[in-house]
Amino acid sequence: MKLHPIGVIHSPFTERAGMAIQPSGAAGVKGTVEVLPEYAEGLQDLDGFSHIILLYRFDRSAGYKLRVIPFMDTVPRGLFATRAPARPNHIGLSVVRLERVVGRVLHIDGVDILDQTPLLDIKPYVPAFDAPQECRTGWLEGLGGAARAKRSDERFA
Amino acid sequence: MKLHPIGVIHSPFTERAGMAIQPSGAAGVKGTVEVLPEYAEGLQDLDGFSHIILLYRFDRSAGYKLRVIPFMDTVPRGLFATRAPARPNHIGLSVVRLERVVGRVLHIDGVDILDQTPLLDIKPYVPAFDAPQECRTGWLEGLGGAARAKRSDERFA
Repeated sequence: MKLHPIGVIHSPFTERAGMAIQPSGAAGVKGTVEVLPEYAEGLQDLDGFSHIILLYRFDRSAGYKLRVIPFMDTVPRGLFATRAPARPNHIGLSVVRLERVVGRVLHIDGVDILDQTPLLDIKPYVPAFDAPQECRTGWLEGLGGAARAKRSDERFA
Repeated sequence: MKLHPIGVIHSPFTERAGMAIQPSGAAGVKGTVEVLPEYAEGLQDLDGFSHIILLYRFDRSAGYKLRVIPFMDTVPRGLFATRAPARPNHIGLSVVRLERVVGRVLHIDGVDILDQTPLLDIKPYVPAFDAPQECRTGWLEGLGGAARAKRSDERFA
């Protein structure tokens, strides 16, 4: 299975270190998604959605370990119980706010993605499909504020 | 970018037609995720989470069109404003309930995925990261019950 980028994500974060220390998470962090011209037609109707799901490539992560110590934790955890970017398939997922669509550029808020990240897919975010109720969040619950913080793959890695 | 399945998803749905007519969506539909032995160690700690995000390959979809008529609609919509499986990169996403973990098999509920679907990734579902508040859902809002129905990629395609 071979993937091809359909665009690129622009953000203020040129390296992971900067993302990791964002104290209040990604809320308020602005960025853009630039979709390649050949896919622009597929953006029609997207502006009706307040939030979108971005799938992208963790292109600055290589390899993986099956146990990782999350940034905010001190105990090794199973990789699939974390959002660490170094995974068997390096696919990242972020739910971001869609502020406006200008041609083939999406203006987004809540960006916890490195600049120049290759975009793989855009899906509309639909609470009825994507937001289950009454959730437990495992090891994150012991971290207090961590589980309530806006996500950052880096802090949560 | 080349991807490799890390497991396989088992469900009652052997063809799309059966999924499409599920009147009440996928809630209550049980399935399993069988993770390959070499990745089993990464499942540690996952059982603390009530819900997980599955990324998988839409392996029975080929090609794509940039405008599609969703199953519950009559108007062509931009592909990226739908969850249609025929997309430039054929990556599917489902949030499912994790009922229990038995060895390297995850028992899940809320399955809207075809049987034998190749698994690409598992991420813990964390409301603080993945569930924004005050959402608008574009063209789906005009459909009434559709937007409130449990998701099915097929009905939503």
